[in-house]
Amino acid sequence: MQPTTSNSAFNFKTYASDRRVIIEERLEQYLIHNEPQKLWDSMRYSVLSGGKRLRALLCLAAAEAIKPNEDVSNLVLPCACAIEMVHAMSLIHDDLPSMDNDDFRRGKLTNHKVFGEAMALLAGDALLMLANEILIDETPAKVAPSILLSVVKELAIATGAHGMVGGQVEDMNFTGAFDLGHANKEFVDENILSSIHRRKTGALITFSIWSGAKLVGADEKQLIDLKRFGEILGLAFQITDDLLDVTGDINTLGKTPGKDEASQKATWVRLFGIDGSKQRLKELESEGLSILESNGTEIGSAPVLKELIKYAINRVN
Amino acid sequence: MQPTTSNSAFNFKTYASDRRVIIEERLEQYLIHNEPQKLWDSMRYSVLSGGKRLRALLCLAAAEAIKPNEDVSNLVLPCACAIEMVHAMSLIHDDLPSMDNDDFRRGKLTNHKVFGEAMALLAGDALLMLANEILIDETPAKVAPSILLSVVKELAIATGAHGMVGGQVEDMNFTGAFDLGHANKEFVDENILSSIHRRKTGALITFSIWSGAKLVGADEKQLIDLKRFGEILGLAFQITDDLLDVTGDINTLGKTPGKDEASQKATWVRLFGIDGSKQRLKELESEGLSILESNGTEIGSAPVLKELIKYAINRVN
Repeated sequence: MQPTTSNSAFNFKTYASDRRVIIEERLEQYLIHNEPQKLWDSMRYSVLSGGKRLRALLCLAAAEAIKPNEDVSNLVLPCACAIEMVHAMSLIHDDLPSMDNDDFRRGKLTNHKVFGEAMALLAGDALLMLANEILIDETPAKVAPSILLSVVKELAIATGAHGMVGGQVEDMNFTGAFDLGHANKEFVDENILSSIHRRKTGALITFSIWSGAKLVGADEKQLIDLKRFGEILGLAFQITDDLLDVTGDINTLGKTPGKDEASQKATWVRLFGIDGSKQRLKELESEGLSILESNGTEIGSAPVLKELIKYAINRVN
Repeated sequence: MQPTTSNSAFNFKTYASDRRVIIEERLEQYLIHNEPQKLWDSMRYSVLSGGKRLRALLCLAAAEAIKPNEDVSNLVLPCACAIEMVHAMSLIHDDLPSMDNDDFRRGKLTNHKVFGEAMALLAGDALLMLANEILIDETPAKVAPSILLSVVKELAIATGAHGMVGGQVEDMNFTGAFDLGHANKEFVDENILSSIHRRKTGALITFSIWSGAKLVGADEKQLIDLKRFGEILGLAFQITDDLLDVTGDINTLGKTPGKDEASQKATWVRLFGIDGSKQRLKELESEGLSILESNGTEIGSAPVLKELIKYAINRVN
């Protein structure tokens, strides 16, 4: 594959669509039909249903930013695909009737609407385990076992009670808090909201960037900078999500807007309004870009991470 | 801790209760209260609710069988506890209304009855990830990263679509098959039933034994023998489960007997009757013992695995 270069003609759209093709090919390969057939059908339905592949792109982009003159995609594609499987699992479980009870996702029926609740539950569980299996089994032996182990461990942390699942629970705890007798508007403040976002969506986004860099041998300074960049990007991504729920329309979004308002969810827009949220996004963008530009390493010379934060903020779905 | 020895005075009951104490202590330590509090309460509720700890015992026993003159418990306790977390997760998800819809487990209310469906679902997901984190983070550095990686990978395989979750789906597919128009009694034969059991319960039991041996440096021949022993033990354990559902009573079992019959589940007893099932157990016991006695390695000198297969067959709950 063509390495990314630092020339100014870098085209993010072309980059993203090129990379998405190889990500989809790999996912298809890792999720080849197996038995029990209905279980694999259910797993495939949710993983292979398109989507932005933002997390996989971030993993690839971080690897390419660290090694701009090498083709490192083979080293990180298993990890990028594992992340997409974990992400798909989280969507399947989130959509279940006992959780958000959603009928549609990306314009298609949700997993349990097609395969039933029991199968959706089990497909999610199986995807979590397949992610680990693929990450360990398919990552080339060129990656040292100790590095691969640390990546598997950080994926578990980003996904579990300290990360995504914990954020999901926090989110549930505060949903409706605005209107419940036991709380008032001040009850959910910026700190709480940031904590929910850092865990619920931020942890896996940060892991995507960190793991891509770690697998190709980034040094400690680079890893710390990219972790911070990932946190900023994750928060920007979530605030944009909150904004789109207010300003987007169903056709562009692929899901019903206005759900946060209807469910009394704690969101950035509810706390700071549309203008306040847009202002925060601008600050995050400039903070993110300054990390990339100031670190004096090769990270800053790769345009793709810069474009990714712009994309996270300016996307329409 | 006192190493196991090969003297004939070996007392399995004392052994098992001694080991259970250190397993419970470790689980308590690994599941120390954290936040979000309700999530950890839910995780702790199911993991720390007692139980036989069969899988953790198997992991310890296999390690001790390979290294009978060393105290190897520290090397394998993180893995033993990780297995118990995975097992607890499978019970939480199995009990959910969309699955078996059980109100009681081990004489206590099931997780979702206490914490609600959403929390039970998320506690299961979090336990799966915590198992990986503990296994990687807490296994002593004396275990080579490449060995630890293979253990993490095999846990994913034993737990996911190829193992436990896949077996669960197969089981669902055949439950009620006796009475549905599309199938008849011959439809579920010994091969299908063995396949269900090998995956649904056998895979994690086999992994428990295999991982204990692998982590302390067993050789290939030992690992192959113990894998086969694990498969036999897993099947024996499941057939005993099927028998107890027919012959047991609620007080001894800690759960309602007769559920398999009521749900038209494909079981060994339905296929071969009580006598046929008991006969198969005897065959499995002698096959298991002959593996331990014939392999010419140190496995045969440790009494604990022999006692474990006797226990798996003669237990009353």
